Amino acid sequence: MQALCLTDKLAFRTDYPKPLPDPGEALVKVVLAGICGTDLALLEGYHGFQGVPGHEFVGVVEAAGDESWAGQRVVAEINCSEDDDPRHAPDRQVIGVLGRDGAFAEYLAVPERNLHPLPESVSDEAAVFCEPLAASLRLREQLCIAPTDRIAVLGPGRLGLLVAQVLELDGAVVTLLGHRPESLQLPVTMGFAADLAAYLPDNSFDLVIEATGGAEGLDEAIRLASPLGTIAVKSTFHGPAPVNISAVVVKELTLVGSRCGPLEPALRLLDRGAIDVTPLIEAEYPLSEGVRAFEHAARPGTRKILLRPGG
Amino acid sequence: MQALCLTDKLAFRTDYPKPLPDPGEALVKVVLAGICGTDLALLEGYHGFQGVPGHEFVGVVEAAGDESWAGQRVVAEINCSEDDDPRHAPDRQVIGVLGRDGAFAEYLAVPERNLHPLPESVSDEAAVFCEPLAASLRLREQLCIAPTDRIAVLGPGRLGLLVAQVLELDGAVVTLLGHRPESLQLPVTMGFAADLAAYLPDNSFDLVIEATGGAEGLDEAIRLASPLGTIAVKSTFHGPAPVNISAVVVKELTLVGSRCGPLEPALRLLDRGAIDVTPLIEAEYPLSEGVRAFEHAARPGTRKILLRPGG
Repeated sequence: MQALCLTDKLAFRTDYPKPLPDPGEALVKVVLAGICGTDLALLEGYHGFQGVPGHEFVGVVEAAGDESWAGQRVVAEINCSEDDDPRHAPDRQVIGVLGRDGAFAEYLAVPERNLHPLPESVSDEAAVFCEPLAASLRLREQLCIAPTDRIAVLGPGRLGLLVAQVLELDGAVVTLLGHRPESLQLPVTMGFAADLAAYLPDNSFDLVIEATGGAEGLDEAIRLASPLGTIAVKSTFHGPAPVNISAVVVKELTLVGSRCGPLEPALRLLDRGAIDVTPLIEAEYPLSEGVRAFEHAARPGTRKILLRPGG
Repeated sequence: MQALCLTDKLAFRTDYPKPLPDPGEALVKVVLAGICGTDLALLEGYHGFQGVPGHEFVGVVEAAGDESWAGQRVVAEINCSEDDDPRHAPDRQVIGVLGRDGAFAEYLAVPERNLHPLPESVSDEAAVFCEPLAASLRLREQLCIAPTDRIAVLGPGRLGLLVAQVLELDGAVVTLLGHRPESLQLPVTMGFAADLAAYLPDNSFDLVIEATGGAEGLDEAIRLASPLGTIAVKSTFHGPAPVNISAVVVKELTLVGSRCGPLEPALRLLDRGAIDVTPLIEAEYPLSEGVRAFEHAARPGTRKILLRPGG
């Protein structure tokens, strides 16, 4: 089958073996997939991943042990394990991220317990945002965020704009922070407050969501968070980052690592039309042009790049 | 007066000007003072501090606007500001740490609102631990710590042994972790579980208190904390530290910076004899030998070094 395969570099192949699902797994035909910051990190060596990346996707079940799944349009939890909490199971695989092939291919195998049927109302283009939208909702599982808090999202990109939409649902004001004036155009068009991070004084926010995807974001977040404030850290990347630990201690900040979230409420929000993903889409490429699509996705300020197998 | 003064290096002086208290400040004659990890960091350039360090001390009030203080034996909050929360006031001074001379001298000036009278039952040698004991109790203000949690203190030194005593008060078991076998001797003598950090598997503890005082401790704490676990960060030092941020995100850890704590319960614990500071004292030097005392305090594994003016 066709697949984007990462070994020492990313390559499009037409001879990649079609997955053979294990018992309890479904064979899913990929309809649409999205490139995420984590995918770009995998190319830099994150997790030492080899194989087919891709964990944001919508597909149609072609075959499953439970035949009621056949033909259903689905999204899926990406953490695979028999444990009660697959997100933190030590033996887990993560679709397209850790030990298991992902969705930048014509087909992938997915444990049936990970599948979620898609409401008809949710388009493929919206459904492909289900995984990062769930990751945004994870913040609501971890933190008590008041609509009166001074909230900033550092990194006005793909994930940041989803996080900001989620955190404004209850009447809060969220400021998107970037480093380049061009990066603030989309947030402003979408109606958000936006500012250049470097020009803001220290201690400006009660809560900072670090969603830059890079190593330098955390120290800026530490600077911008007020004493006793909170920083939610969303960025994963290859290698260590230099961090001003003493400022964390002196300001008594709380840093909370935040990863994958709940798909059900993400689907409900998309079903209700409460989240607008349209402005977040930059371009769609056929899977065969996946290498070029990754180059596009890696350019600063690029919104979501979608990949369509068979396109 | 006699004082240890830090400019480009630390020096003992006999001609340092005796402090002239501002209105609302008391003149305190220092009886005994302790050298802390933060003092050693100041010598490395932390905060760019210049002047007289020393923030762990017990003294006797020589003069104060409120005359009822005169002659009283006291300890003191070290954060000085008119704000409701002096610990995080942006304009604060910190005795012997930030913008204000400290206790490695014959006298220091202290805002009267910062003073706490000492119960007679608490010896000078115990009272000098009041500030770091309060810093240990700060953890109880910030975190919900269950006596069933798997708790480790990384750094079996001066502060770590106080933290461990505080966290065991409610029946918990605290493991002291060090890097050298010698560093575990005192914890074991004091009855604590103790282990070499490097030999422990990943994800061994629900809560890790990082009290090494150094830049490398946090990454070890991140490794040892279990997914969804908590790390309390106590170490302050000069410069940034390399941190494996992605592990914080993937394990969804919570990092909490923790600094100064409440003196009243610290005094009550000392008054009740619930905390044993005797094994934590290594040596006492006269203030005139303060430079040598600092050299002693900087050696790995050294317990508390005390300084006595006029000694």
